[in-house]
Amino acid sequence: MNDLIYETIVTTVSAAGRPHIAPMGVRHRGDDIVLMPFRPSTTYDNIVGTGAAVVNLTNDVRVFAGCLTGRHRWPTVAAERIRGVRLAGALSHLELRLRDEGGDPNRPTLRMARVYQRRHGDFPGFNRAQAAVIEAAVLVSRLHMLAPDKIAREMAYLQIAIDKTAGPAEHEAWQWLRERIDAHNAASLETTP
Amino acid sequence: MNDLIYETIVTTVSAAGRPHIAPMGVRHRGDDIVLMPFRPSTTYDNIVGTGAAVVNLTNDVRVFAGCLTGRHRWPTVAAERIRGVRLAGALSHLELRLRDEGGDPNRPTLRMARVYQRRHGDFPGFNRAQAAVIEAAVLVSRLHMLAPDKIAREMAYLQIAIDKTAGPAEHEAWQWLRERIDAHNAASLETTP
Repeated sequence: MNDLIYETIVTTVSAAGRPHIAPMGVRHRGDDIVLMPFRPSTTYDNIVGTGAAVVNLTNDVRVFAGCLTGRHRWPTVAAERIRGVRLAGALSHLELRLRDEGGDPNRPTLRMARVYQRRHGDFPGFNRAQAAVIEAAVLVSRLHMLAPDKIAREMAYLQIAIDKTAGPAEHEAWQWLRERIDAHNAASLETTP
Repeated sequence: MNDLIYETIVTTVSAAGRPHIAPMGVRHRGDDIVLMPFRPSTTYDNIVGTGAAVVNLTNDVRVFAGCLTGRHRWPTVAAERIRGVRLAGALSHLELRLRDEGGDPNRPTLRMARVYQRRHGDFPGFNRAQAAVIEAAVLVSRLHMLAPDKIAREMAYLQIAIDKTAGPAEHEAWQWLRERIDAHNAASLETTP
């Protein structure tokens, strides 16, 4: 049985101060937060380079869908206690300092200590369409490993929650992910002998 | 395109003060909240009887799964400004007064005015397993309308997020829903000629 994983947006900066935004699952370990970025990745390099990261909670699922479809630029503001940035639209953010690194060299386990935490807005509640966008974002991140009919079947299922419970932001995020899948399928057809 | 719907727990009391707890999707309409309970239902009767309801946000998905599997009793405490109760474990709650009733007589549209709102805890973030439990709860609420193979296929898909991202509460909620589906399937087999 695994620990509970939260789907968040992790923001980091390079040594030169350039912001990077990436969706990432995080675990709680006692009072610490555990991040497991792949290697190589900008997030990994930035955390090791600066010794810091920010975990953002947002209900704007366009950030999740956008980061998987080439829309990497979302408004950020400087973090308060660490070298980094947070999402300007975060409902809350948590500033973290790297405590230690272990685990698999290809996907290290970064144990991060809490430095500072702040709430910016109220969580308005569970929305099935937002959850469907996050599931579709997970599918899109694995397109190269999944069969087209499996993707089509799962997207058809997730579409139900979009049709019934989405607002404009969720429809926009969903559209980005659908376009990405269509482009992938078209490219796969072209390379099929 | 519909409005965004949030999945919440609505708590009400009868004229005699008996609490009732029900999962319900709610919409925002300007500053008001719209509830659409079916008729007949205890929630509908209680809201019309008392003129009040509470919308609770909780990340304890056992309340959603529990209400669909015969586990209706969850700790409540008195509301502050209206006649009613809130979930003791709510992350936040919103006390509402009935403003007017319209729409379909079988599923009336209850427009509710905000009276009082309070936050009790921080939303810790999106969790795919919690979303999967809510999806499975929706399936369970529609068992009588769905083909067994469709249910099995969707539960198999949702199981992935449970296996990867659930904590103990999510596993418990998932188990309740699985047992309910198994019981439904067994009963269907017995009545199949």
